[in-house]
Amino acid sequence: MDLDRAARCGYPEVAFGEGKTGEQIAAVFAAQREAGQRCFATRVSDEARATLAARFPSAVVNDAARTVRLGEAGGEVGFVPVVTAGTTDRPVAEEALETLRWMGVRTALIADVGVAGPHRLPERLPELAGADAAVVVAGMEGALPSVVGGHLPCPVVAVPTSVGYGANFGGLAALLGMLNSCAANVVAVNIDAGFKGGYVAGLIARGPTFPTE
Amino acid sequence: MDLDRAARCGYPEVAFGEGKTGEQIAAVFAAQREAGQRCFATRVSDEARATLAARFPSAVVNDAARTVRLGEAGGEVGFVPVVTAGTTDRPVAEEALETLRWMGVRTALIADVGVAGPHRLPERLPELAGADAAVVVAGMEGALPSVVGGHLPCPVVAVPTSVGYGANFGGLAALLGMLNSCAANVVAVNIDAGFKGGYVAGLIARGPTFPTE
Amino acid sequence: MDLDRAARCGYPEVAFGEGKTGEQIAAVFAAQREAGQRCFATRVSDEARATLAARFPSAVVNDAARTVRLGEAGGEVGFVPVVTAGTTDRPVAEEALETLRWMGVRTALIADVGVAGPHRLPERLPELAGADAAVVVAGMEGALPSVVGGHLPCPVVAVPTSVGYGANFGGLAALLGMLNSCAANVVAVNIDAGFKGGYVAGLIARGPTFPTE
Amino acid sequence: MDLDRAARCGYPEVAFGEGKTGEQIAAVFAAQREAGQRCFATRVSDEARATLAARFPSAVVNDAARTVRLGEAGGEVGFVPVVTAGTTDRPVAEEALETLRWMGVRTALIADVGVAGPHRLPERLPELAGADAAVVVAGMEGALPSVVGGHLPCPVVAVPTSVGYGANFGGLAALLGMLNSCAANVVAVNIDAGFKGGYVAGLIARGPTFPTE
Amino acid sequence: MDLDRAARCGYPEVAFGEGKTGEQIAAVFAAQREAGQRCFATRVSDEARATLAARFPSAVVNDAARTVRLGEAGGEVGFVPVVTAGTTDRPVAEEALETLRWMGVRTALIADVGVAGPHRLPERLPELAGADAAVVVAGMEGALPSVVGGHLPCPVVAVPTSVGYGANFGGLAALLGMLNSCAANVVAVNIDAGFKGGYVAGLIARGPTFPTE
Amino acid sequence: MDLDRAARCGYPEVAFGEGKTGEQIAAVFAAQREAGQRCFATRVSDEARATLAARFPSAVVNDAARTVRLGEAGGEVGFVPVVTAGTTDRPVAEEALETLRWMGVRTALIADVGVAGPHRLPERLPELAGADAAVVVAGMEGALPSVVGGHLPCPVVAVPTSVGYGANFGGLAALLGMLNSCAANVVAVNIDAGFKGGYVAGLIARGPTFPTE
Amino acid sequence: MDLDRAARCGYPEVAFGEGKTGEQIAAVFAAQREAGQRCFATRVSDEARATLAARFPSAVVNDAARTVRLGEAGGEVGFVPVVTAGTTDRPVAEEALETLRWMGVRTALIADVGVAGPHRLPERLPELAGADAAVVVAGMEGALPSVVGGHLPCPVVAVPTSVGYGANFGGLAALLGMLNSCAANVVAVNIDAGFKGGYVAGLIARGPTFPTE
Amino acid sequence: MDLDRAARCGYPEVAFGEGKTGEQIAAVFAAQREAGQRCFATRVSDEARATLAARFPSAVVNDAARTVRLGEAGGEVGFVPVVTAGTTDRPVAEEALETLRWMGVRTALIADVGVAGPHRLPERLPELAGADAAVVVAGMEGALPSVVGGHLPCPVVAVPTSVGYGANFGGLAALLGMLNSCAANVVAVNIDAGFKGGYVAGLIARGPTFPTE
Repeated sequence: MDLDRAARCGYPEVAFGEGKTGEQIAAVFAAQREAGQRCFATRVSDEARATLAARFPSAVVNDAARTVRLGEAGGEVGFVPVVTAGTTDRPVAEEALETLRWMGVRTALIADVGVAGPHRLPERLPELAGADAAVVVAGMEGALPSVVGGHLPCPVVAVPTSVGYGANFGGLAALLGMLNSCAANVVAVNIDAGFKGGYVAGLIARGPTFPTE
Repeated sequence: MDLDRAARCGYPEVAFGEGKTGEQIAAVFAAQREAGQRCFATRVSDEARATLAARFPSAVVNDAARTVRLGEAGGEVGFVPVVTAGTTDRPVAEEALETLRWMGVRTALIADVGVAGPHRLPERLPELAGADAAVVVAGMEGALPSVVGGHLPCPVVAVPTSVGYGANFGGLAALLGMLNSCAANVVAVNIDAGFKGGYVAGLIARGPTFPTE
Repeated sequence: MDLDRAARCGYPEVAFGEGKTGEQIAAVFAAQREAGQRCFATRVSDEARATLAARFPSAVVNDAARTVRLGEAGGEVGFVPVVTAGTTDRPVAEEALETLRWMGVRTALIADVGVAGPHRLPERLPELAGADAAVVVAGMEGALPSVVGGHLPCPVVAVPTSVGYGANFGGLAALLGMLNSCAANVVAVNIDAGFKGGYVAGLIARGPTFPTE
Repeated sequence: MDLDRAARCGYPEVAFGEGKTGEQIAAVFAAQREAGQRCFATRVSDEARATLAARFPSAVVNDAARTVRLGEAGGEVGFVPVVTAGTTDRPVAEEALETLRWMGVRTALIADVGVAGPHRLPERLPELAGADAAVVVAGMEGALPSVVGGHLPCPVVAVPTSVGYGANFGGLAALLGMLNSCAANVVAVNIDAGFKGGYVAGLIARGPTFPTE
Repeated sequence: MDLDRAARCGYPEVAFGEGKTGEQIAAVFAAQREAGQRCFATRVSDEARATLAARFPSAVVNDAARTVRLGEAGGEVGFVPVVTAGTTDRPVAEEALETLRWMGVRTALIADVGVAGPHRLPERLPELAGADAAVVVAGMEGALPSVVGGHLPCPVVAVPTSVGYGANFGGLAALLGMLNSCAANVVAVNIDAGFKGGYVAGLIARGPTFPTE
Repeated sequence: MDLDRAARCGYPEVAFGEGKTGEQIAAVFAAQREAGQRCFATRVSDEARATLAARFPSAVVNDAARTVRLGEAGGEVGFVPVVTAGTTDRPVAEEALETLRWMGVRTALIADVGVAGPHRLPERLPELAGADAAVVVAGMEGALPSVVGGHLPCPVVAVPTSVGYGANFGGLAALLGMLNSCAANVVAVNIDAGFKGGYVAGLIARGPTFPTE
Repeated sequence: MDLDRAARCGYPEVAFGEGKTGEQIAAVFAAQREAGQRCFATRVSDEARATLAARFPSAVVNDAARTVRLGEAGGEVGFVPVVTAGTTDRPVAEEALETLRWMGVRTALIADVGVAGPHRLPERLPELAGADAAVVVAGMEGALPSVVGGHLPCPVVAVPTSVGYGANFGGLAALLGMLNSCAANVVAVNIDAGFKGGYVAGLIARGPTFPTE
Repeated sequence: MDLDRAARCGYPEVAFGEGKTGEQIAAVFAAQREAGQRCFATRVSDEARATLAARFPSAVVNDAARTVRLGEAGGEVGFVPVVTAGTTDRPVAEEALETLRWMGVRTALIADVGVAGPHRLPERLPELAGADAAVVVAGMEGALPSVVGGHLPCPVVAVPTSVGYGANFGGLAALLGMLNSCAANVVAVNIDAGFKGGYVAGLIARGPTFPTE
């Protein structure tokens, strides 16, 4: 484990829960608590979430996001809304939201404003005002980040999801769409990478000084 | 040459000019004129366009579209607007426009309303009213057809262009975006296929009865 | 939910059933019935179909198509035949057929006329006469839409299916074949997109005036 | 050079002319003539064809095919028709035809019978009667081999061409179409591989005994 | 069902068993027996094989090949050896062998002579003598058909298998290897297409006259 | 032209010079100067750069970057270093540097610190201190952003370049590497997208208040 | 089985356990023991490992590597460290380690020194001193081999793993990264090919004289 | 420039000549000569080779390889044969040969022993005896490394070339073939990477002690 990461990078190490048991993640959390650090685990299995909930009663478990976090951020700074195209993009968006909460960044969910319902996003634009960065989560053709990017002056972190079928190729269509965005303020992360999308947007919102608990 | 095509399919054969000399296309046109048919050639080289213009003074030559057409449609029916995302999509849009003019379908160009300038399309929406079908031409992420599709009740024929670079892969990104469109009324044709996009939209606008000159 | 969609787009919203429970879809249907709209759900799981059948006794459940629809279209207009290459293309074709029935468009199934049995399609051509548009469903090499397109003067909406194996790559071979069709009246939708294929063909058949129940 | 190849494989070595000068190919031809063998070169540049024509006045130079052959086959056996979808497939078909002539196999060209003109192939079917094998050359969606395969009882060697654009991907769409052919008697060779297509079909037509000059 | 296929193509229709129940295939077999035709089914599930074995006691069931055939070919003509690279290629080879037996073509299995053991193929070459065609089945890099093709004067039908992992991409590596074979007498069929490989090789061996039972 | 963009997005429109003449870009610049806006053009051809230099003597022309900019930013805020792996990545890095200069963001070039010379980056780390964001430009395997990301607490915008050959596939290898970066603070833009990389990093550095001249 | 392989290639045949039962592998082992050879099997299923452990009590079973080996190498020569980027790369690394132990090559595991923690590898460099070759196992962006290659003068055999998600495409991103490595001493093997990576590195370490037990 | 590389890695830096002028490479050579190092440049343009030949009369210029080297290796150690499949693979093989000569490793060229002429390699096998490693260069299906690997006990470094057409995809087919090689002693480098292939094989041949001039 890398306990110096908080000092070096501004935030403690995050446990990537894929393939790990609840006991393994619990050991990481225990060591981090010992060191006075906030804890966060992503892609945590159902079984491991149950184990962690039992071991750490104050842990915040998010079943949609498949995350567990522990320790209060102590106040919020900045503002990063998380925008989704459709209901099936929700789990990835929740992972981004939990990441931002763990970082102590104020956030909001603007859900289901995909481009096929063109009246939906304009109605919600006031809720995006003042954003330091936005996370936009979309599958299928991945068009929403371009549209959001056209409305906002801040960076937009686009997160493609594997939602779709056929020529979607597991999110590749959405990823290529985002990389080719005609909006100059759109950057992309890997498919289904809700954590990385939230993390980079959170870094932008917090700015160069990093409170490390 | 297939002179029966007009009777069978509603429109005469179209000359695909790629790799053909002006003389070769002129021979096709002459035979079609002989048979009383309207003529149309796409992807015509600079040299061949010059040859055809000299041989057929009444021909309509479109340099941007690289097309030549000959013979009046005799009135217009229906309405198919052609919508583009950016200026570099113009040549493909012109090919679609010329196709519609050759078919005798009323058309209009709504240019440069790509999603990164989200205020642009709404301003032009009144010009799309009453469309029987729309042709939407876009490169890069290919998001515009989804947005147009969300505003219109009619079919949208999406034409991806090879405009872009890098992970655009010669128009593949735009094509995948269009195939994965979340708008239910969007269908796609091949990359840079302005003719096919215009032709199918024209068929929709003219309906089941086909005047064949 | 988007209850204004019927007014805006001519047809009410369709529930994409993937990943949704029967209760979730039933709630959508109830709200739509309340608003006097016809209901339609695609990609509905076995469990959800059973739930919906129990809740809405008049619902039409199609197990092959995995669809549920509710509410009569009140008469039929237009004609859109659905053509398939082989027996394994049937579920996707059924989804297209149900979509057309829900839209109130007359339809017919011309099944198993793939190109390897070249005598089969010509025998069935009379049944295609008068079509406003045709939906052609094919897997493997996806050649059937080109052949049908050569026989018909109307638009052909090609639906590739993921039927096949090996270098089929989950329907990619069929999709590429359809996008590269040498027939000028063929457009394509996503792999296995029976609903979209049927929907666009239905829009073509109904023309610019949309009855919304 | 492999002068034993005629004894071992039934036919002398064929010079692959890509990147070779006329002098280099002439040296191969001279050695083969010395050994009493027939000569054949494919993908021969304009310059090299001129050199070979000057050096070997009896050579048969085919500019469309970009081939040069030398030495009479001494009679014809079998029958292998070469079928093409469109005019742009002609050069690849010519390479196959020249290969068959060099092998001493009777051949015939059935040109421009692509599937979008569905009446064309049936009219020409009598010319295919008695074929030992057929070579079918097609670009774009590559559908023609399946249709020919459905009409003929003999093996069909499908040759995809790089004719097309956009999502054709340099012949990949046609190649995948042919590999996924629903006709059981269709095999494929590489894109633009007119020589290999003709060679294998010629082997089938000649049968197990190989005259080697 | 297509009972005329035997007259038209030389062999009766073959049942593609994927997704079919034993009862469905049994119905096909019964109708074919009624018409005096030999029967053959591929990709038959365990359950369906058991059903067919019970219904048709004289059926030949091959569990490795997952095939069932019924009716004697009445003598053998020609010779088509089936060659494999490794033990995991065996099921696909068995499908080719069963196809050849159903066609009444003499065959032999030359197993496990992949190129990494370069002494193995030369030892077995005498068993390949006199072949009318060879079927070569290989996964991984798919090199064996080129080597066999270099030794034999007859056509080689290469069948790539999905054996391998990682950059094999489900047989794509082997397929590309076979399409790019430097041996002029090698043609390819789809990945795991043991039936098609055997069928085309069998057509070559039987020649232009087809006994249809 | 979109002169409102400066107010809406914080920065005036940037001219994408690909395929544009010097006169066309000059017209854009003139209108922007009229409106009191700073000007910037990317991917400007040699001819167009010469035209612009003649028309606007105070323009800053960067031949390596192929950019032209006009108008002083009036002071610098923030700090965004641009890091490159090798000398061939320089043109893309220069485009990012010019973008940052046009935005009024302090920048620095840390060149040729690719991972194959592992001692090089550590020596230059002090020059990265205090960065608000970093742009990392790399071709080939695209590994440098991950390493830089491991050293810095701020966001890293990774720009893949098309430098390389063979299995690089025009920058795809580098792009995939960056999208799969194990460093949580790395986001990616399109291949060779020096402008977008610099622009987003500049937005991060300037923060939510945008001076628009 | 190929019992001559030890004499011909320096090492006995290795059993590829994929799809083999414990009994099948045990038969290979028994024959090899009979011939006085050391035994090794990879990709052995849980069931087969249990069978082999029961049959050969002195066998070394490695559950993480899924390998079984039998027979002492009789001393160690050379030195090949195995380096991993993250914990999920461990199973592939263990397969490489077991291969080296079976070959009688001294080895060591340097785990979890991925590039996102840039301080980790430098701390472990002394443990790599004196290596004849190194095996570097990494998933995600596959950057570690380039960095290790920059530090070491010996060959580096890079083994990509299928660890990752989304645009990792089952290890393709890591593989492409390794093939495009800017370090001149890096070669690659197939995805997850721990055995091959270890084997080639072991051959390098042992040099031209091969003890064959 | 990295003059410490000779001490750190055993060999001086090699100039990658792509896009560099003769003057730029000459400056590198001059500095290296100053430091008493041997010089080597790859991918050197015609113009740059002429410049270097004029500036350094003792330089060894290889036009086929497009390389220039300067300074004697002072004796040869080890043995690395370079094997090619066909004549078009020669330039890449020459680059590998020049690399080995610059490293002071004894080498030999075994040309044109591709698998389609199966008698050719066995005749040349005695020339491969005693190899420390072999470089095998092949395009098309890339099968030769597997066959060579089956004959030799030493490591085989496979270099795919971009020789071929159609479904070769610029060398991808050969690369995939080599990565999937069924021979355990085969590793791969990038397409056309003659230098890297030669360099790693040279490192294997020289062993752990590196003379640095």
